[in-house]
Amino acid sequence: MFGSSQKPNAEPSSDEAKDSPSRRSFLKGFGTAAAAGGLISSPGLSVLDAEAKDTTAMETSLSRAPDPQVAADPTDLPPPVDWSSPRTHDISLKCEEVTAEIEPGVEFSYMTFGGQVPGPMIRVRRGDTIEFTLENVSASVKPHNIDFHAVYGTGGGAEATMAPPGQSQSISFRAEYPGAYIYHCAVPNLDYHISSGMFGLIFVEPEEGLPPVDREFYLGQQEVYTDKPTGEKGSHGFDFEAMKREDPTYVLLNGQKHALTKNAFGPMTAAVDETARVFFVNGGPNLTSSFHPIGNVWTKAWREGAIASEPERQVQTMTVAPGSCGIFEMDFPVPETVKIVDHALSRVARKGFLGEIKIEGEAQPDIFDPDPGTT
Amino acid sequence: MFGSSQKPNAEPSSDEAKDSPSRRSFLKGFGTAAAAGGLISSPGLSVLDAEAKDTTAMETSLSRAPDPQVAADPTDLPPPVDWSSPRTHDISLKCEEVTAEIEPGVEFSYMTFGGQVPGPMIRVRRGDTIEFTLENVSASVKPHNIDFHAVYGTGGGAEATMAPPGQSQSISFRAEYPGAYIYHCAVPNLDYHISSGMFGLIFVEPEEGLPPVDREFYLGQQEVYTDKPTGEKGSHGFDFEAMKREDPTYVLLNGQKHALTKNAFGPMTAAVDETARVFFVNGGPNLTSSFHPIGNVWTKAWREGAIASEPERQVQTMTVAPGSCGIFEMDFPVPETVKIVDHALSRVARKGFLGEIKIEGEAQPDIFDPDPGTT
Amino acid sequence: MFGSSQKPNAEPSSDEAKDSPSRRSFLKGFGTAAAAGGLISSPGLSVLDAEAKDTTAMETSLSRAPDPQVAADPTDLPPPVDWSSPRTHDISLKCEEVTAEIEPGVEFSYMTFGGQVPGPMIRVRRGDTIEFTLENVSASVKPHNIDFHAVYGTGGGAEATMAPPGQSQSISFRAEYPGAYIYHCAVPNLDYHISSGMFGLIFVEPEEGLPPVDREFYLGQQEVYTDKPTGEKGSHGFDFEAMKREDPTYVLLNGQKHALTKNAFGPMTAAVDETARVFFVNGGPNLTSSFHPIGNVWTKAWREGAIASEPERQVQTMTVAPGSCGIFEMDFPVPETVKIVDHALSRVARKGFLGEIKIEGEAQPDIFDPDPGTT
Repeated sequence: MFGSSQKPNAEPSSDEAKDSPSRRSFLKGFGTAAAAGGLISSPGLSVLDAEAKDTTAMETSLSRAPDPQVAADPTDLPPPVDWSSPRTHDISLKCEEVTAEIEPGVEFSYMTFGGQVPGPMIRVRRGDTIEFTLENVSASVKPHNIDFHAVYGTGGGAEATMAPPGQSQSISFRAEYPGAYIYHCAVPNLDYHISSGMFGLIFVEPEEGLPPVDREFYLGQQEVYTDKPTGEKGSHGFDFEAMKREDPTYVLLNGQKHALTKNAFGPMTAAVDETARVFFVNGGPNLTSSFHPIGNVWTKAWREGAIASEPERQVQTMTVAPGSCGIFEMDFPVPETVKIVDHALSRVARKGFLGEIKIEGEAQPDIFDPDPGTT
Repeated sequence: MFGSSQKPNAEPSSDEAKDSPSRRSFLKGFGTAAAAGGLISSPGLSVLDAEAKDTTAMETSLSRAPDPQVAADPTDLPPPVDWSSPRTHDISLKCEEVTAEIEPGVEFSYMTFGGQVPGPMIRVRRGDTIEFTLENVSASVKPHNIDFHAVYGTGGGAEATMAPPGQSQSISFRAEYPGAYIYHCAVPNLDYHISSGMFGLIFVEPEEGLPPVDREFYLGQQEVYTDKPTGEKGSHGFDFEAMKREDPTYVLLNGQKHALTKNAFGPMTAAVDETARVFFVNGGPNLTSSFHPIGNVWTKAWREGAIASEPERQVQTMTVAPGSCGIFEMDFPVPETVKIVDHALSRVARKGFLGEIKIEGEAQPDIFDPDPGTT
Repeated sequence: MFGSSQKPNAEPSSDEAKDSPSRRSFLKGFGTAAAAGGLISSPGLSVLDAEAKDTTAMETSLSRAPDPQVAADPTDLPPPVDWSSPRTHDISLKCEEVTAEIEPGVEFSYMTFGGQVPGPMIRVRRGDTIEFTLENVSASVKPHNIDFHAVYGTGGGAEATMAPPGQSQSISFRAEYPGAYIYHCAVPNLDYHISSGMFGLIFVEPEEGLPPVDREFYLGQQEVYTDKPTGEKGSHGFDFEAMKREDPTYVLLNGQKHALTKNAFGPMTAAVDETARVFFVNGGPNLTSSFHPIGNVWTKAWREGAIASEPERQVQTMTVAPGSCGIFEMDFPVPETVKIVDHALSRVARKGFLGEIKIEGEAQPDIFDPDPGTT
């Protein structure tokens, strides 16, 4: 079929139909469009706002980032719902194809919502209505669309939002059920588009809201199938046969190798005795994640992001299906660096998956003493 | 070991013992036996009855079906339990080896219970006794047996039901615990027999029964390992090395590519405002399913088919282990075509997995409007 | 990268750093050190005690075992907690590199905690403090450390316990949350060390304790990646490329092929009408387990070992993530041989995974009759 002898970016047909126009390379040097942001603000919008967002955590990193950086800022979330009757939101996302680095020297043709991976998080209240527009920017080469797992309707909206480059499509839907849901591109070669970055999370908050926490983080996992070995410098094309074998070159948190660590754009941060909530989306397209915080535990965990279910308690490692989500609460009783991993550990040791949360504060030797001989 | 240089259907030993007689090809043109049906009716039988069953949903499809068709009719379920004290059932299944098409032009030597994949669904009440007979038809080449996950007893009954071609074996068991359980062939090369189609579902209904729904559907997943590329025309032999690598050629819903879609035997159907219950069995033999209804959500979900557990609520994607089941309830508030997928999406885009439920009724633009500019 | 053309045991760098000293073979004939036991007893120790432990179940097997045997005795567990206020425990584990047989004639360089796989089970009460020492014996070639999923603190203790050969490192921690948690080596090449055997289970019992059962068993799963085909006689080196592909040569229960069966060291045993509790740890490093008792069911199941969650009921097959655990209760209403499997069945049929529990007692033909014609 499509072995390594194929030229990079040659795109096979999926079982259903061909992605059109196919068999062309992405436009290079596209990425600067990402800076414009993918999500268009509008009155009543409950999603991220370029002015209001806290960029502190990413500041150092941005100066060191390759241009463009596709890793989503994990602290760039919409705030909790603060309204108590149904609202209508006007929300837009841009489909942007971005050439960026998976790790220094390794170039890849990403496809994204809003120039970031995962795409911008959307947050509404159950019962709210979303007037949604998908814009496929004119610089795109491929058509795109969007499937929201929060939508009752054919394709989760994918059929109605199919947009060739330079076009926009709109749908309207009411968020009928609560929970954290993935959204993703769902053209016939959807596995290719998701692997390349086209997924994000919409959180439909329960009517009664959620208990307050000190921090919220937004994280996404995907695996990338390229035609060169992991870490080899140069421009990596896509390998459809590796994807068919479910044998990726990279497994990534927020779209780039070690993006959320001191080695790239900086760790997430928190303080001792704070609490946090993690919104996690596993784009896949194929791999199940075994999501674990090293040196910590998920205090409460809503499997699959199903917030209407009873949460599980003190869960070390959470299985998260591809095309699904998780909502996880954490306590930080001691100062430490929590490492976020997929506990299928070869993905961490050999394929680029790692995130960090740096917890600062006073030592708590009663709970953890790393050097008991000296205390 | 057993690479692609081996001749098709050369069968290696499993770790335990040899399937006997082995290293022979299946009898070709066997499949017509499937028409006879695999399940023998008898008084008090709570399983499907050839006379009573509703074949409407499959009628169009049957005219277009290859001969024989192994895809189980998803609407061919036993009705809910309508008795309230323990009964004894006389239930039989036939082991039938059937050559049929995975997709048009791709021939494969299936092994089945009752000539269909998944095998006939069995439905009893907790506390009922099942007098069970496994008949391995005389046209078979291989011995077969059956392991019920609903049975307390060595091999789930597999040891006592081992039947060479032309022989029958009986066991008796009481259904001690409620839930949806897989049954499957469990000879030493059991992964080969399951991959080839030998699995089905037995539902042990709780004493108190289940809330009524408008529709029930019966679905099964398996992956098939062949010695030719996906979609290549011709007769596909079995590839034991690919199975060992857990790298299948096909991943199928109800045994054939796109069987339950308009492209083959027709979609399942329902009407707006109806409810449905899905009984799902993942035969495997190896892959975990990430089971998702595109454009819908599992309103209630009993993970692993464990009906005595609390259901989870509004679950987008459900992890279902190989050798396990799921019970899922659905609402249909809008007209749409729901697509049933394993959200490890390369299995959908490249390996033949897809089912459809067509929901007919009036548009509900308050909930979903695919074209808001015109309404 | 590191294909089969590499010399055995050539060790690549992980993404983070190099294991040092690397690219050397293990010391051969090391294994006799395992007999000394990996866990140092001390006053107040709640873990296994060489004098007190019941070795009955393994007696026959030991006489037939290769020397050394790494399979952990599944009946060698610490007894339930019998104290009701916080205690301090002094617990030590030894890191021991052991050459032993995966199956007769197949030699492998294991790395272990205490010379056994899984490593010794540790059992404390929530709120207890553990003064822990990791000793890397002087015969080791590699440095090791330990990450407890029961620990709040950087690396779950891994950073502070990094010990070169011949050195010891100590930490102190309080068990803040209840449940069954994996511990494992977490050096940069952690997937290699875990695949080679370096994992075990710590159970933090809830303050209120657990209902009594008649038997407790301790089981662990891992997959091993070697540079020879499954079953080929000789010394197997490690295959890093196979690990990267997540395509193991062996998948094992308690570290050796069929260790806990009549074919090796003997089955586990119980009597009709007894109850049992299984503590299960899936080391991985990469594969999800679909853990199932053939001819039985998990009566109660705490997913991921999260004992503070509500248990699930009558669960046939339990998904257990790599780097996670499970707690499972069983009933034994009939005499039978229960087979413990990963229901990704090619791992059973072709890669060495199998355990047995032999239940003895009077036939219960009302529940299961394997030969109804004669009774």
